[in-house]
Amino acid sequence: MAGSNRPGEFELIRTYFRPLAAAAPGAFDLVDDAAVFVPRPAELTVVTADAIAAGIHFFPDDPPAAIAAKALRVNLSDLAAKGAEPRAYLLVLALAEDWTEAWVREFAKGLLTDQTTYGITLIGGDTMRAAGGTTIAITALGGLPGDAMVRRGKAEPGDIVFVSGTVGDAALGLSLRLRQAKGETVAARFEPLLRRYLYPEPRVALAAALRRCARAAMDVSDGLMGDFAKLCAASGVSGAIESVAVPLSEAARALVAAEPAHLSTVLTGGDDYEILAAIPPEAAEDFRQQAAKSSVAVTAIGRIVAGTGLPGALDANGAVLPLASLSFDHFRAR
Amino acid sequence: MAGSNRPGEFELIRTYFRPLAAAAPGAFDLVDDAAVFVPRPAELTVVTADAIAAGIHFFPDDPPAAIAAKALRVNLSDLAAKGAEPRAYLLVLALAEDWTEAWVREFAKGLLTDQTTYGITLIGGDTMRAAGGTTIAITALGGLPGDAMVRRGKAEPGDIVFVSGTVGDAALGLSLRLRQAKGETVAARFEPLLRRYLYPEPRVALAAALRRCARAAMDVSDGLMGDFAKLCAASGVSGAIESVAVPLSEAARALVAAEPAHLSTVLTGGDDYEILAAIPPEAAEDFRQQAAKSSVAVTAIGRIVAGTGLPGALDANGAVLPLASLSFDHFRAR
Repeated sequence: MAGSNRPGEFELIRTYFRPLAAAAPGAFDLVDDAAVFVPRPAELTVVTADAIAAGIHFFPDDPPAAIAAKALRVNLSDLAAKGAEPRAYLLVLALAEDWTEAWVREFAKGLLTDQTTYGITLIGGDTMRAAGGTTIAITALGGLPGDAMVRRGKAEPGDIVFVSGTVGDAALGLSLRLRQAKGETVAARFEPLLRRYLYPEPRVALAAALRRCARAAMDVSDGLMGDFAKLCAASGVSGAIESVAVPLSEAARALVAAEPAHLSTVLTGGDDYEILAAIPPEAAEDFRQQAAKSSVAVTAIGRIVAGTGLPGALDANGAVLPLASLSFDHFRAR
Repeated sequence: MAGSNRPGEFELIRTYFRPLAAAAPGAFDLVDDAAVFVPRPAELTVVTADAIAAGIHFFPDDPPAAIAAKALRVNLSDLAAKGAEPRAYLLVLALAEDWTEAWVREFAKGLLTDQTTYGITLIGGDTMRAAGGTTIAITALGGLPGDAMVRRGKAEPGDIVFVSGTVGDAALGLSLRLRQAKGETVAARFEPLLRRYLYPEPRVALAAALRRCARAAMDVSDGLMGDFAKLCAASGVSGAIESVAVPLSEAARALVAAEPAHLSTVLTGGDDYEILAAIPPEAAEDFRQQAAKSSVAVTAIGRIVAGTGLPGALDANGAVLPLASLSFDHFRAR
């Protein structure tokens, strides 16, 4: 049977997770079952929790470091969208029956790399056996300078809709990944899409610009149009996205050119972890400059308008594009 | 197929979980993907995360409200052991393929009951499909008046070892539950044990007495002797438990009398969620009084001694009891 020599829970924590908590005095080397979180002076504490599960949010044979990165980054993305800086996190790791020590080692290495990149430290959690496939639940704590979190429901008619980075890469990467699983070869020029599915890039660097300029924001996890609809609904407004303005990566543009049906994948597919923000027109130029300073590309892609109708995506002639569904629902799909 | 009419993630959150967040202004009705947690004045923030999984920590056919209670209470128990008062929590609910809306409704009702009992409020989380059986991961935030968390590793030779409530009920209840599953009938006088397995009682009321009197403390989740060994190891000390002093409920005493082999279940079985504390002798009387004021029974069951040997359980003649293993390991068992 697999794993009779595998370490127990406490050895795993001591060997692989305790080093991740070394920089946080309040984590007490993970010896206690709880930690003290001390916010920085004049910062509010923002908390978020997001989990990913094998076969739903990742493939069981994805590299363990990529799974670790995704588990952490989906949470960092939520913090960034709210204007909060990453500070600490708790990790619940539920391991499938066939887990190996090598997997845990690589998983922890992935976390360590991201801790360094994003300036965040493990302060607690739980390691356990899963009731099925591996599942990772992370709660992230962020620090918010100032006195107000950037909300989802504060957009107003006239606001300009911005999105960070490029849209659709992860969803296109997933569709290529599914083709690979069927034995198809993926051309080298599309490989960045595969990578983007594995390693979302949370826009942590954009948090300060959002705090300064955004009326409303959220991260795009379930698809651009679906998440835009949620932002509009929460704000009691409607809106329109100009599909030709939506920023695509070179690889995505090539794939959509080759297979035009993929335009709908771009507009409605999930896992982008870009930031969608409603910026008052008078702050738009400042937002562009602040984002540029942070080396995050931002693009104006639409407008908030009055009304409560479902927001649409417009083609180059201003006609509403027909989309089968507005977003990807991890809860139901696959 | 089951559940084509089942609500989606957002309807579930809106219908069943939003009401649980109504009392927390920083939860923003769960509309955002993050919440603001504001500690009370002069309180430190203590965080802990613990998860439970179907087939490992609970039976899939346990009442949903009992599963909810266990998921929350194992976390409240950790807060209490550290001297912290419950304030807020985030819930990651990963639902098995065959989930029903009725299950979620009863689960949320169970949470609401406990929120009222323990004075805690939902502020965020994630609802998703599970990669197998239902799994619930909760992160609890507590408020700690004063400037220091009660630690696990601060026990000193001479300290008196106290335990709250009664020990072994949950492990005995589990063993009865497993017999029931094989078709055996459980006598009425043993039913409290079954209930104790389903509904652990976190010793939230003891937090203040621990802050005031305890040198070290932890909750007993994996078994009295095993957890005592962890407390001793973290403190760099050894110790001894007098098995005749260990407080048993009436039902547990009756079962151990009928089946003496169950004494080892009592001493090493898990899921008690009582508090184990090392109290300096000069604070022992005060600790007893404070606990009595809080209506939590506490019993002196042993001593901390110098040394690094594994602590033992002594019989009535002071001889070390032979125990096959010191504690129950959810990570490996079942």
